Amino acid sequence: MSFFKDLNALNDALTTLPAPDSLAANTVNEHQAELTKPAGSLGRLEALVAWLAAWQGRPVPHLDKVDVLVFAGNHGVTRRGVSAFPPEVTVQMVANFQHGGAAINQLCKAAGATLKVTSLSLETPTGDITVEDAMSEEEFLAAVNAGADAVSTEAGLICLGEMGIGNTTVAAALAAGLFGGSGDEWVGRGTGVDNAGLARKAKAVDAAIACHKAAMNHPLEIARRLGGREMAAIMGAALAARLKRVPVLLDGFVCTAAAAPLALAAPGGLDHAIIAHLSEESGHGRLARALGQKPLLDLGMRLGEASGAATAIPLLRAALACHTGMATFASAAVSGKEAAEAQAEESRA
Amino acid sequence: MSFFKDLNALNDALTTLPAPDSLAANTVNEHQAELTKPAGSLGRLEALVAWLAAWQGRPVPHLDKVDVLVFAGNHGVTRRGVSAFPPEVTVQMVANFQHGGAAINQLCKAAGATLKVTSLSLETPTGDITVEDAMSEEEFLAAVNAGADAVSTEAGLICLGEMGIGNTTVAAALAAGLFGGSGDEWVGRGTGVDNAGLARKAKAVDAAIACHKAAMNHPLEIARRLGGREMAAIMGAALAARLKRVPVLLDGFVCTAAAAPLALAAPGGLDHAIIAHLSEESGHGRLARALGQKPLLDLGMRLGEASGAATAIPLLRAALACHTGMATFASAAVSGKEAAEAQAEESRA
Repeated sequence: MSFFKDLNALNDALTTLPAPDSLAANTVNEHQAELTKPAGSLGRLEALVAWLAAWQGRPVPHLDKVDVLVFAGNHGVTRRGVSAFPPEVTVQMVANFQHGGAAINQLCKAAGATLKVTSLSLETPTGDITVEDAMSEEEFLAAVNAGADAVSTEAGLICLGEMGIGNTTVAAALAAGLFGGSGDEWVGRGTGVDNAGLARKAKAVDAAIACHKAAMNHPLEIARRLGGREMAAIMGAALAARLKRVPVLLDGFVCTAAAAPLALAAPGGLDHAIIAHLSEESGHGRLARALGQKPLLDLGMRLGEASGAATAIPLLRAALACHTGMATFASAAVSGKEAAEAQAEESRA
Repeated sequence: MSFFKDLNALNDALTTLPAPDSLAANTVNEHQAELTKPAGSLGRLEALVAWLAAWQGRPVPHLDKVDVLVFAGNHGVTRRGVSAFPPEVTVQMVANFQHGGAAINQLCKAAGATLKVTSLSLETPTGDITVEDAMSEEEFLAAVNAGADAVSTEAGLICLGEMGIGNTTVAAALAAGLFGGSGDEWVGRGTGVDNAGLARKAKAVDAAIACHKAAMNHPLEIARRLGGREMAAIMGAALAARLKRVPVLLDGFVCTAAAAPLALAAPGGLDHAIIAHLSEESGHGRLARALGQKPLLDLGMRLGEASGAATAIPLLRAALACHTGMATFASAAVSGKEAAEAQAEESRA
């Protein structure tokens, strides 16, 4: 059985999104205040623990099981000469994931995470978005469900990512469809196209927007027309994660664009998801700003495969380790700020 | 026996610093180009592996042993009301480190690193820098040697950090002494002083600079007069690490200021050290720019204890895991960019 029975069920889910567990987050914040450090001095690490608690719905969040979900798809738009690599690389890289040879395999191992790769009809590329819909409604729903089904309720966190030759062009089209702007504002060099390739990407995005403009009446419809299977799966996984109370780390440009329809389709629809790494792909900064997010890392990566998200997992582990392992001022007999103020008071008296 | 026999030996070391092993770095870069990813797509992770290789002097660097060295000292300037916490917190926090209750204990555990804490005459604060030298030459040399002796040649990487109530004021004075600028340009809220405390910090820095101005003729002399024992130890550790071929991650504002004399005392004197995290302490950004560095992380932390450096260890582990574990295009039978270009050529023909 599929997670979302039909598109109506998918739309219904968007109207009944679980809210953050503010009680759990408050419990975290109260405990932080007692730990042996100046208030707030662990910066974003503290906020991350509260965020985990809020979206897991647990006052003491866990990261016992972290899953990295990578979805792969192929794209009809590759015929427009938009990638530096040939489309057969998608299936070759999936094999590389399965044999443990890709960057994401090493990053998962280093971060104590489990990699799950889902191939989505690689033998059938999506429609060429410059002239037709990427997916039929059935194809779109199937891809969304493939994503949703990959999310385990046991996970304390999932990282989302993708593989799909040509998908930075598709992501640029999707971003332009959702947030406006022209092709050249959203495209980047992807796997490494030259200037001519970059111009072809911008042209393809502009053509796609022109082709679908009249029908871009809802974020999900934009995702169906201008997206890709792996991107629909990412959106489905992000939505299911919200419903299953699993916080999400988003990877780079393609992954963020894939999840972005949720932010527009429902208020706070992506509040349970954090952009893990600011991609070198030029549209990502613009996209992060459009979503009101500051990525956790900025290391100039632009690989996809959930590599940026997996690189950020240890930050969350570090944050949680501090939260659960540190002594309190009372237990460690460390004088607090109040003691200093009392002492200062005394010396002034 | 001490690592540096006397101040002359220390100065001599600065004139004979080992250069990076460019052969090792080149070997790394050649191997990176063969791995199954677009060239450069792991961004700074790739540069980090080359940096490790260059400064370890090994074509395949290792991180089998990572040490986190935290040095603690007390400061006469605390009598000027420059900290939100009383000076006895330094020794209390050292006890907390020893009992495993501090943030740095959890961060080391999470990152697979070993914590070594060195207390430096906590019962004898340095001189009040607003009116006298922080340390005599003997005290300074002893502190430098304590740092140097803490560096193991077995380590693949060390993180440096500190604990010392009052030392953000001392660090601001040292930074002002080394790079110019007034107190209010370098001081920040440290552990959390209010506006009046911030004004006292700026005033103390200005007083210290005025007091020592005439004698600030060499970076090491500035470190002796305006620094602290834990800071001299950090400098000694960073210098010894260069000589022992151990790359260094620097923590936040105090740690970076402590190591900064090396950058001024010798060309490229800090090239083997990377600032791990941009501290929320306001002077750190200015200091990083003065040293020409972009910190690896920017998470709003301001705790010291090497916490920012330890948080960055997993980034280096991730970088190295990719480098040593990934398949090559040839071994994984993944088509490279050249294949795409050949194919494009063919389709144009």
